[in-house]
Amino acid sequence: MPETQYVHGYSAREADRLADQANALSDLLHHDTAYPRASLVLECGCGTGAQTIHLAASSPEAEIVSVDLIPESLEQARARVEAVGLGNVSFQVADVFDLPFPEASFDHVFVCFLLEHVPEPEKALLNLSRVLKEGGSITVIEGDHGSWYCHPSTPEAERTVECLVEIQARHGGNALIGRRLYPLLCEAGFRAVHVGPRLVYVDDSRPDLVEGFSKNTFIAMVEGVREQELSLGLMDEASWDKGIADMYRAAEPGGTFSYTFFKGTALK
Amino acid sequence: MPETQYVHGYSAREADRLADQANALSDLLHHDTAYPRASLVLECGCGTGAQTIHLAASSPEAEIVSVDLIPESLEQARARVEAVGLGNVSFQVADVFDLPFPEASFDHVFVCFLLEHVPEPEKALLNLSRVLKEGGSITVIEGDHGSWYCHPSTPEAERTVECLVEIQARHGGNALIGRRLYPLLCEAGFRAVHVGPRLVYVDDSRPDLVEGFSKNTFIAMVEGVREQELSLGLMDEASWDKGIADMYRAAEPGGTFSYTFFKGTALK
Repeated sequence: MPETQYVHGYSAREADRLADQANALSDLLHHDTAYPRASLVLECGCGTGAQTIHLAASSPEAEIVSVDLIPESLEQARARVEAVGLGNVSFQVADVFDLPFPEASFDHVFVCFLLEHVPEPEKALLNLSRVLKEGGSITVIEGDHGSWYCHPSTPEAERTVECLVEIQARHGGNALIGRRLYPLLCEAGFRAVHVGPRLVYVDDSRPDLVEGFSKNTFIAMVEGVREQELSLGLMDEASWDKGIADMYRAAEPGGTFSYTFFKGTALK
Repeated sequence: MPETQYVHGYSAREADRLADQANALSDLLHHDTAYPRASLVLECGCGTGAQTIHLAASSPEAEIVSVDLIPESLEQARARVEAVGLGNVSFQVADVFDLPFPEASFDHVFVCFLLEHVPEPEKALLNLSRVLKEGGSITVIEGDHGSWYCHPSTPEAERTVECLVEIQARHGGNALIGRRLYPLLCEAGFRAVHVGPRLVYVDDSRPDLVEGFSKNTFIAMVEGVREQELSLGLMDEASWDKGIADMYRAAEPGGTFSYTFFKGTALK
């Protein structure tokens, strides 16, 4: 079941990709999230802890409870947090659709790249709201693969990304969820909903993002579903390989890359 | 010839649309452009002056020479500038492909929504570089219709925007030029090239942008090519009308809209 839920899988390469993504984007995604001393924060869907270390470092005096479905991911997350010397995170196996916490347990809730992978994001938000105290905040960060484009582009490059969107949908997820974040938070009953886009634009004047985002985060993510794509036959192998090569071409000098994350905040 | 160059035409409604666009986006696009006292600035492709009034107001002590191909547009621009009491703009009929100025005439060059409408943007930039002094700056603002998406979306809504891109290409333009701005400026020999995306994200917590951008700028622009679209038969009338209605649906509460402009600056 977990194997079918997370479209990108649980390989070591995927863990590296998630860390590259988190490091390249930490300022962009996390700079405006900090929780006060002694507040209790639930991070739901922490995976291997790629975002957890940024969350915990930004709020060193808050107490963070990071949960995930997969025990092996939690072990990696625990090791990652220990490796950077952070002591304010505890870990627990839990499912967003069956959270083992009483009502109003947490001062704040944080989720990053979780809703895009679950079949019922509305229900996930209601469950998160249940464990959040009245007046507490929720912060949700999600991507939107439909926001991606590059130059130069080709039909094959565009099709590889569409294939990933289709494969994620077959896993029950929605890779275009960023644009839906505002209505989702409103419909779940949160108030003071604010959604801000975080656009990553890359050209060769930004070599750190060429490596950290274009190649090691985005193209690596698309490449990561190669076997699933070929076994489903959404594209033939030669076209898929050309699409990936074309994306790498857009990460060369003269090329550009754009992608938008969405960060939503709201109060219960 | 002018009639075939500017895909959106020269109607009063289009002039209003351009003014709505400029007003809704003036901070986003213009807040970081200001020229020093006594500097001579060329604005190329000023049209009816929708951007000119923001440019001139932001640099009240600079001297701005605004040029356009179309005398009637220049008259509207002149009236608009006079109406807001700005005295630092002069107007002249001129073609970016045949600029009637000696080499190195201007301290700075400014173009907004011009390159997307010309058949040879590389050559336009070389011509603009010719009239710019050594060490002077060029500022270029362009859109990218491929950056647009909305929620909820439909294939018809997406197709109406693709039709506009195709029609603009038939006029010799490129509605996807924003993503190409960085390599275009580099290839034209400019140095210190910096391109920054300016993302417009709209949900119903931002009612001014729902009206000023989603409806009165973007959807109005797509609607504006209705006759051209139907005469070309790129979409049948019922599908096109549904696409437009679907876009208006995304401007209602619960809907979201995204679009990215690109602003490039560089030195000669």
